[in-house]
Amino acid sequence: MSAKKQKDTEDPPRGVLIEPGWTGTVRDIDPRSTPGFDGKKKDGQQRLTELDAPIDELQERLYAQSRATGEGPSVLLVVQGMDTSGKGGIMRHVVGGVDPQGVQITGFKAPTRAEKRHDFLWRIRKRVPGPGMIGVFDRSHYEDVLIHRVHGWADGNEIRHRYAAINAFEKELVEAGTTVVKVMLHLSHAEQGERLMERLERPDKHWKYNPGDVDERLRWEEYMDAYDKALAATSTEAAPWHVVPADRKWYARIAVQQLLLDALQGIDPQWPAADFDIRGELERLTATLD
Amino acid sequence: MSAKKQKDTEDPPRGVLIEPGWTGTVRDIDPRSTPGFDGKKKDGQQRLTELDAPIDELQERLYAQSRATGEGPSVLLVVQGMDTSGKGGIMRHVVGGVDPQGVQITGFKAPTRAEKRHDFLWRIRKRVPGPGMIGVFDRSHYEDVLIHRVHGWADGNEIRHRYAAINAFEKELVEAGTTVVKVMLHLSHAEQGERLMERLERPDKHWKYNPGDVDERLRWEEYMDAYDKALAATSTEAAPWHVVPADRKWYARIAVQQLLLDALQGIDPQWPAADFDIRGELERLTATLD
Repeated sequence: MSAKKQKDTEDPPRGVLIEPGWTGTVRDIDPRSTPGFDGKKKDGQQRLTELDAPIDELQERLYAQSRATGEGPSVLLVVQGMDTSGKGGIMRHVVGGVDPQGVQITGFKAPTRAEKRHDFLWRIRKRVPGPGMIGVFDRSHYEDVLIHRVHGWADGNEIRHRYAAINAFEKELVEAGTTVVKVMLHLSHAEQGERLMERLERPDKHWKYNPGDVDERLRWEEYMDAYDKALAATSTEAAPWHVVPADRKWYARIAVQQLLLDALQGIDPQWPAADFDIRGELERLTATLD
Repeated sequence: MSAKKQKDTEDPPRGVLIEPGWTGTVRDIDPRSTPGFDGKKKDGQQRLTELDAPIDELQERLYAQSRATGEGPSVLLVVQGMDTSGKGGIMRHVVGGVDPQGVQITGFKAPTRAEKRHDFLWRIRKRVPGPGMIGVFDRSHYEDVLIHRVHGWADGNEIRHRYAAINAFEKELVEAGTTVVKVMLHLSHAEQGERLMERLERPDKHWKYNPGDVDERLRWEEYMDAYDKALAATSTEAAPWHVVPADRKWYARIAVQQLLLDALQGIDPQWPAADFDIRGELERLTATLD
């Protein structure tokens, strides 16, 4: 690229779109790259701050639009990634920029015994965003085709059954008016090592460390295979995946922010018309003024 | 006060504490006053930004502390106030400064039919914050002794019964480790008139306007009486009220922020000790590094 690009070019940062029918591997995407963005960290941080305002207004419109009728579109942002890939930072610095009244974050841990008695989508369905809301999943139903594949908790047939169930579920969501944004935070093995090391070295980070993290790390290649297969099977027209390089935290944040902005702009929510008699109310209110 | 005070004096902005046994009226508190703060709007806005960082760290400690055991203290911030008193702004600008993963906001609307079949505290109990969390109520169980008194939906005996139930409930919460912070955003009748007028005049604010708002406004004095009685009956040692002057939005925000900071500092959460073998994990992790 010849000239240094600024934000608001035709090519904002969005990570890498996984087209339906994709047969690649995430290994071919450089976790340190910054697709769509030529700036440095400082430029990225500035962009993150500047885009808060347009997202804020769109989110308020989205929320407002649904208040009158109790119906209307919504957004679901699904965030997946290996341990330390920066999911928490996305919640804090991207989602945290949005009015918290319009956002519902759900962190999906290992399912409880009660949850295990149901279909894997049961607990997911309960947390899809209502009209006007932005729902965010920190991990998701994709765990059921990722960790389950890696550990062999489900066989190939069952995994394929789950892909189909996921695609049907997401299609249903989209048809009901939810824009589904799916992000894989794509971290390198080396960067994960450094981040885990930092958690071990800093007492204020110990609480984030779990010995199981190293066990999973030892299965890195199996996880990458599982991601490749899951992305290939579930990147659909209705709900495509974006692989967002995540070794640079600042880049991952502006890319996810852009995807959220895209989703809101795609909905193009409008301020709802007044459902009351404006002139009559002006008179009524004026009569009460001090 | 002689010299202009800066933040971090002994007397930060906290609104007005309602001591247990109080028999006053909120009418004696000036909604335009800024108790504990001599600065101007710009100073207040700066303070709001600056205090985000200490709150952020305390919140993270609070959250971290509970992760190991699934137990531990929490904070419940109850925000009450007349229409347009700025509850939404508190959610957005004070609560919105905190990591959204550690916060649960509940807006209580008129109860549903299902909720009405239960005791008035039933839906409230379901939304109290879990260990390590900051729960925020935008309206609350206090509606059941405010609007219910004003409209006569409950008689004096029933209201007194509810005060007792509320005090018992909040005492139980506090004993279980929840710091309960109760705030009345105290708006003037004149300022409410202006804010409602703005909602009527701006198409992007119409969605926030409800003709019922004027109906309630016509009962202003009855509401102030209901607040006086509720504050007198439920400002306890365990869970006192603060009346926060709210005609200046910036002041209300820094006062509520200070009360949240006080609550977190009172808990004084600590980073939890590692529950794993640090040296052993360092060796295990080092063996995996690239």
